[in-house]
Amino acid sequence: MAEEEIFDQCQNPAIRLDRRREDLHKVVNQLTKTCLSGDCFEHLAPQPIPLRDNTIAIIKQARKLIFPGYFTQTRIDPVNLKYYLGQELSELHEMLGNQIILAIRHDCLRYHDSCVNCEERGLDAASDFVKQLPKLRQILATDVNAAIEGDPAAKSVDQVIFSYPGLFAISIYRMAHQLHHLKVPLLPRMMTEYAHNLTGIDINPGAHIAESFFIDHGTGIVIGETTRIGKRVRIYQGVTLGALSLPRDAGESLRNTRRHPTIEDEVIIYAGATILGGKTIIGARSVIGGNVWLTSSVPPDTKVLQKTQQPIYCEGGICPTQE
Amino acid sequence: MAEEEIFDQCQNPAIRLDRRREDLHKVVNQLTKTCLSGDCFEHLAPQPIPLRDNTIAIIKQARKLIFPGYFTQTRIDPVNLKYYLGQELSELHEMLGNQIILAIRHDCLRYHDSCVNCEERGLDAASDFVKQLPKLRQILATDVNAAIEGDPAAKSVDQVIFSYPGLFAISIYRMAHQLHHLKVPLLPRMMTEYAHNLTGIDINPGAHIAESFFIDHGTGIVIGETTRIGKRVRIYQGVTLGALSLPRDAGESLRNTRRHPTIEDEVIIYAGATILGGKTIIGARSVIGGNVWLTSSVPPDTKVLQKTQQPIYCEGGICPTQE
Amino acid sequence: MAEEEIFDQCQNPAIRLDRRREDLHKVVNQLTKTCLSGDCFEHLAPQPIPLRDNTIAIIKQARKLIFPGYFTQTRIDPVNLKYYLGQELSELHEMLGNQIILAIRHDCLRYHDSCVNCEERGLDAASDFVKQLPKLRQILATDVNAAIEGDPAAKSVDQVIFSYPGLFAISIYRMAHQLHHLKVPLLPRMMTEYAHNLTGIDINPGAHIAESFFIDHGTGIVIGETTRIGKRVRIYQGVTLGALSLPRDAGESLRNTRRHPTIEDEVIIYAGATILGGKTIIGARSVIGGNVWLTSSVPPDTKVLQKTQQPIYCEGGICPTQE
Repeated sequence: MAEEEIFDQCQNPAIRLDRRREDLHKVVNQLTKTCLSGDCFEHLAPQPIPLRDNTIAIIKQARKLIFPGYFTQTRIDPVNLKYYLGQELSELHEMLGNQIILAIRHDCLRYHDSCVNCEERGLDAASDFVKQLPKLRQILATDVNAAIEGDPAAKSVDQVIFSYPGLFAISIYRMAHQLHHLKVPLLPRMMTEYAHNLTGIDINPGAHIAESFFIDHGTGIVIGETTRIGKRVRIYQGVTLGALSLPRDAGESLRNTRRHPTIEDEVIIYAGATILGGKTIIGARSVIGGNVWLTSSVPPDTKVLQKTQQPIYCEGGICPTQE
Repeated sequence: MAEEEIFDQCQNPAIRLDRRREDLHKVVNQLTKTCLSGDCFEHLAPQPIPLRDNTIAIIKQARKLIFPGYFTQTRIDPVNLKYYLGQELSELHEMLGNQIILAIRHDCLRYHDSCVNCEERGLDAASDFVKQLPKLRQILATDVNAAIEGDPAAKSVDQVIFSYPGLFAISIYRMAHQLHHLKVPLLPRMMTEYAHNLTGIDINPGAHIAESFFIDHGTGIVIGETTRIGKRVRIYQGVTLGALSLPRDAGESLRNTRRHPTIEDEVIIYAGATILGGKTIIGARSVIGGNVWLTSSVPPDTKVLQKTQQPIYCEGGICPTQE
Repeated sequence: MAEEEIFDQCQNPAIRLDRRREDLHKVVNQLTKTCLSGDCFEHLAPQPIPLRDNTIAIIKQARKLIFPGYFTQTRIDPVNLKYYLGQELSELHEMLGNQIILAIRHDCLRYHDSCVNCEERGLDAASDFVKQLPKLRQILATDVNAAIEGDPAAKSVDQVIFSYPGLFAISIYRMAHQLHHLKVPLLPRMMTEYAHNLTGIDINPGAHIAESFFIDHGTGIVIGETTRIGKRVRIYQGVTLGALSLPRDAGESLRNTRRHPTIEDEVIIYAGATILGGKTIIGARSVIGGNVWLTSSVPPDTKVLQKTQQPIYCEGGICPTQE
């Protein structure tokens, strides 16, 4: 049927060719007009803008420094290590500096009258980030160990570093959180959305997450902007740490308020659990069962289970088909 | 243990080398034979086929035209804008035309005896698509604004366009839906599956979705082929707009029937809600709570909540470990 | 606010520049010291290691042989087919052999005193894998047919092979499972995590899955390491085949024990169902409804539904806002 309809369209190649040319011409004019009349979202500026690809390159460069030798074909040994790190680090500083400058300048031009010292500010932010790398590496080492501890399927540290989506997402979140903390615009979210793309784990750069954090499987996890997570917390796929329902005009009214929960030390949250609200606190060492739905606080050392109703067992499939 | 077993295998390099050669030879013969005997899914044809990479290139090219200046390093200003758009547009038309021709020809050769005017039909479809770009841009602008309105964490329009997976998936769906509407085979689904890959948001190209659509987080969302969504609808991660349970032989019997729900204007559907069935209609301005399970219609202006059972709180972890 | 704070930082460019140089220098020293003192996860070795990119290249090469003509621009016909397959196969054997050698050598150096015959063992493993390709193609053909049977939205075999994330993930799982079976370290999980990245479908290489397996949509599916799945099974997005809750120190104690369920032939498991535990067996031809939560066995030919509570319908939105 689809085919026939297409067949019907096939008359007079010559005429059609001309028409196509005109069409293209018309479309260009429309697209131009609507844009100049401010009727579209454009980015007409004398300056280029940060690009996703460059942001990804920065992430990969930083990982080379955090886990030396894991993500490169270069042979590294104790002798050349220092030169290798020196080389990679100055590259990182330059790549990062450039993107931050673009991001700051973009923001200035768009939301401020003037733009002062964008260069300086960008390079300083890049330096401040780079200075945090040793700490970043320390805390990520605690995350790697948490994965080994928490996952019976983990075969080796190398496997965790090579392959675990949780560690990948946490690494990128920790980088992005640093830039977020340094008030760098645009880049932090571009970074975490790259991790979100690859892992299905959506951690907002604004969230606060302490050491030894383990995410297993991870797909579908959402950790909101104002979430706070303590030490040695473990969460599984499909867990939402989110906000309570929002009014239609939520956007403005709620910006910069605490909307997401607090998870204290050593809490375990199983797959599909949903914990909502800025006043919700899950006490230390508590265990939240799979699919549990929580909008209020839980004291420390508590186990919370979803009372699973006995499902209906139907003989010979004679029962309301609801799913 | 694994290691030892491998060790045991390590005898007589020379012999093994010969055996490996023979093995390869045998495998080639098997693979060839099974293929010629029609015993495998092959695509032996005088014509190449549309490739995923080219489809992705088309998507990126189209985005350059829809959001000028956002996804390029080229400096664009009001003066060169028109030349820029003209250049990019004719490129898009050519890239798209070529892929559509391949897709149509592929379909013809495979499912019809003859193939008439594939070239013409491909180029015309490409033109018809390109002519829709201004409208596409208009409706996508409403989607961008919906994100700003709906998300307190949204920092700027730029961030939404750069980083929001929801907008990314919606953009690609709207392109794919156009091609689906033009009866182009193969490409539409290749496009939406690319978005599905990157965002975890699975929107079938056949679905109908009106303006100002906002998806937050998005991972795990499924919007089925015959779904209809009204204006200013907002949905969250893990929402399924799906079909009721299917008999084993579902494939044939149900093709081309209405199997997925209707969502009217200004409905909000929170995370994890499941709405199933072609006869299910969610009335305008209704709010569907998180994890709600619906297989029947809801009148307008209704709020539907999952009656959350009080979870079980266990002291000292003495309670049936079910999760 | 962010902006102002950044403005405040902008004093004395010259001084700052020097400081930045010193900073970089300090950071390099710190990163080097902590690494040599074994205080970080490094991979200092005379040998390079398997890389994700090469692993992806292997997957793509194997797909060229499994579905000839689908993932290449090369024109293939019955005449050149054999040369094409011969060429691609020896390439695959070489690429795969090299990566396996790197993986084995890496493992040897790290976890054993000596490393014997890594070359030989790697090439043999590659041969053993390649010899399985015809079988692999046979079983994947059954998976393709299962998709056509199971999905009313499936337009053609080509669409399934080009676009279906389920088939993509299953293809990679079946390759990875082969390598896992051959005791190849690192690569199998790297492969399945690549599929997990692109599809949100997380199938552990250790799982056993029989022919005619169909996954629809797929995002959020988790299939654990010791899962066993029979023939003609169909599962939907968000299904977890997982382990029961683990004690904090789970890692060690539970390695290599049966922790995940058994799904017998022709079972259908709908979206969001969770089935946990190594002793849990879902009997043949049973149907598990959406969101059902199971931690105990189900006899054959049973239909299990989640007793869905009547949701609360609130007029005028006057009801406890819980979501």
